[in-house]
Amino acid sequence: MTALADPAVDRDHAEVEHFYARQMRLLDSGEADAWAATFTEGARGAVAALAAEGETHRHWVGMLAVRPRGDGSLLAESYVQVVAVRPGEGPRLHLMCTCADVFVRQDGELLVRERVVTRDDRR
Amino acid sequence: MTALADPAVDRDHAEVEHFYARQMRLLDSGEADAWAATFTEGARGAVAALAAEGETHRHWVGMLAVRPRGDGSLLAESYVQVVAVRPGEGPRLHLMCTCADVFVRQDGELLVRERVVTRDDRR
Amino acid sequence: MTALADPAVDRDHAEVEHFYARQMRLLDSGEADAWAATFTEGARGAVAALAAEGETHRHWVGMLAVRPRGDGSLLAESYVQVVAVRPGEGPRLHLMCTCADVFVRQDGELLVRERVVTRDDRR
Repeated sequence: MTALADPAVDRDHAEVEHFYARQMRLLDSGEADAWAATFTEGARGAVAALAAEGETHRHWVGMLAVRPRGDGSLLAESYVQVVAVRPGEGPRLHLMCTCADVFVRQDGELLVRERVVTRDDRR
Repeated sequence: MTALADPAVDRDHAEVEHFYARQMRLLDSGEADAWAATFTEGARGAVAALAAEGETHRHWVGMLAVRPRGDGSLLAESYVQVVAVRPGEGPRLHLMCTCADVFVRQDGELLVRERVVTRDDRR
Repeated sequence: MTALADPAVDRDHAEVEHFYARQMRLLDSGEADAWAATFTEGARGAVAALAAEGETHRHWVGMLAVRPRGDGSLLAESYVQVVAVRPGEGPRLHLMCTCADVFVRQDGELLVRERVVTRDDRR
């Protein structure tokens, strides 16, 4: 385990956490262009599962671990739940995944350069 | 997406996150008076769903996004899961909601002035 | 509710949160020795539920509240979901628990000295 807390790592962690709160909200509310703009051009693996017609999806990121890499990028590993809700029905836990993102900074802004999502049911 | 991280916003975010951890615990443990004291007097929309007799409810807040507003208040948007558990049965994901809270500070303390909770099954 | 935010408490909170992200990942990926090393020697209550053969478990910690105690240790209270996934099947919310951990620092590193996990279905 990492020993003493590092303020810079704490800041990166907080920034990535806030990033996901915004990014997944864009996805869940269907704002496809704004969502796409959170990735670098040419980012791989950025396609997300779209909600079925008439269904609300909630992408919930947690258990986030962020590590700086030697080249100035950040590796962010997380667990992701996808909850699906149809009108008038109870919510259901639709998918459980792990996510490994590589973040880079462009003009001060964090962008996802690579994303690898692994579904636990296909592990 | 917001560009550079802002320490003041980070602090607000952390404070709101810690607030929810305490506030929802009060709700889930049935401490109604202490729960009510986390809202301003006359706060709207503060009524929460009570757990059915003999059932434990867990309000789980995540994907938190906090933005300062011009008047000094904070807008906190989050996803909320409500998990229900009956003795001897497995837990079930009872409700999936979004929550939009307006926070104000009174004597240095964060209080909820307005709360709008939207159930995804009634969207 | 606690009034003004305290930077030291914020730091402790962040450090404990990051600790759990790493510790639960060790558990979920079956790294038993590294997992055990996150507890002090002689720690009580450290046994975790092992996933059944062929099943993936995800321990998800949230709603974290961290309080310093007079003796220099930290009390960390949280909600924990355990999500279980079998290959080819949808995920299921397996357990809902509360967790109360006492953390101590050894050589600058946080370790769990005591852990009390309470399953909501056995409450």
